Amino acid sequence: MRISKGVEWAGHACALLAPLWPDKGLPLSALAEFHDLPEPYMAKQMQALARAGIVSGGRGRSGFYTLARSPSEITLLDILRAVDGEEPMFRCSEIRQNGPCGASPADCKSPCNIAAGFWRAEQAYRDSLARVDLAAVARSVAAQLGSDKIAQAGEWVEANVRTRT
Amino acid sequence: MRISKGVEWAGHACALLAPLWPDKGLPLSALAEFHDLPEPYMAKQMQALARAGIVSGGRGRSGFYTLARSPSEITLLDILRAVDGEEPMFRCSEIRQNGPCGASPADCKSPCNIAAGFWRAEQAYRDSLARVDLAAVARSVAAQLGSDKIAQAGEWVEANVRTRT
Repeated sequence: MRISKGVEWAGHACALLAPLWPDKGLPLSALAEFHDLPEPYMAKQMQALARAGIVSGGRGRSGFYTLARSPSEITLLDILRAVDGEEPMFRCSEIRQNGPCGASPADCKSPCNIAAGFWRAEQAYRDSLARVDLAAVARSVAAQLGSDKIAQAGEWVEANVRTRT
Repeated sequence: MRISKGVEWAGHACALLAPLWPDKGLPLSALAEFHDLPEPYMAKQMQALARAGIVSGGRGRSGFYTLARSPSEITLLDILRAVDGEEPMFRCSEIRQNGPCGASPADCKSPCNIAAGFWRAEQAYRDSLARVDLAAVARSVAAQLGSDKIAQAGEWVEANVRTRT
């Protein structure tokens, strides 16, 4: 039960793009450079985000990524699902149907309480992630940094930003 | 992000032991047979449960497992942790400290909102699992089966049960 590193990377890339929405973005090389991450693996995360409709653009040498919708409409749950998929964590293999006293499939139309308990917990997990949107993430990242760092990051973004024409 | 099958197996083994608590239990071979599971892999889960203080006994040919405490004091969270460990799902590698505008460690004393969001969701997940105890699981397993199946399982248990002397 480990979330791939790509989720962290994708989250930070999106947080970097959030203040640039709607018409500005950054090329893949800059998204990788800002956090000193290897470009090919960063590319993989950005492609996953693009497939999920969270970012758009990025193709070709002169391409760049922008958020595909408002930061307030993108949540940590969206990013997790884009990168790590939507499979449930708990997989029920219906072992109650096995063995000398196995239940019949007809008696197993509703999930047993073990599976139901895990799936309810997963729903609580997803609900919690769905309450954290990128606008809030970007605000808090800024609030945690000092004003010097914000100015420095602002200059770096200014030097790398691209604008949709 | 996938929970190992062992969690499901351990959960069902505990549900089978719950009505036998405090003085009765089942040998490993019976715990495996009841759900038609391979004994060596079942053994691994029972050892993990024993290490976590959820079951006791089990050693030797004539040994058998009992719950180590009341079914109402064992939750799905306890079983998950015993089998899958306590590592967080989300690992933060502090990439905000990387790159040309990297934050200083001094500015990173509190987790960034991305890590905090994932960890809060994990807490919601654990809280939900901690609300499901084995007594409730065992009751609902019984309620879902028909009375014929309950009688059949009762006879099977009667033929395999061991009592602590």
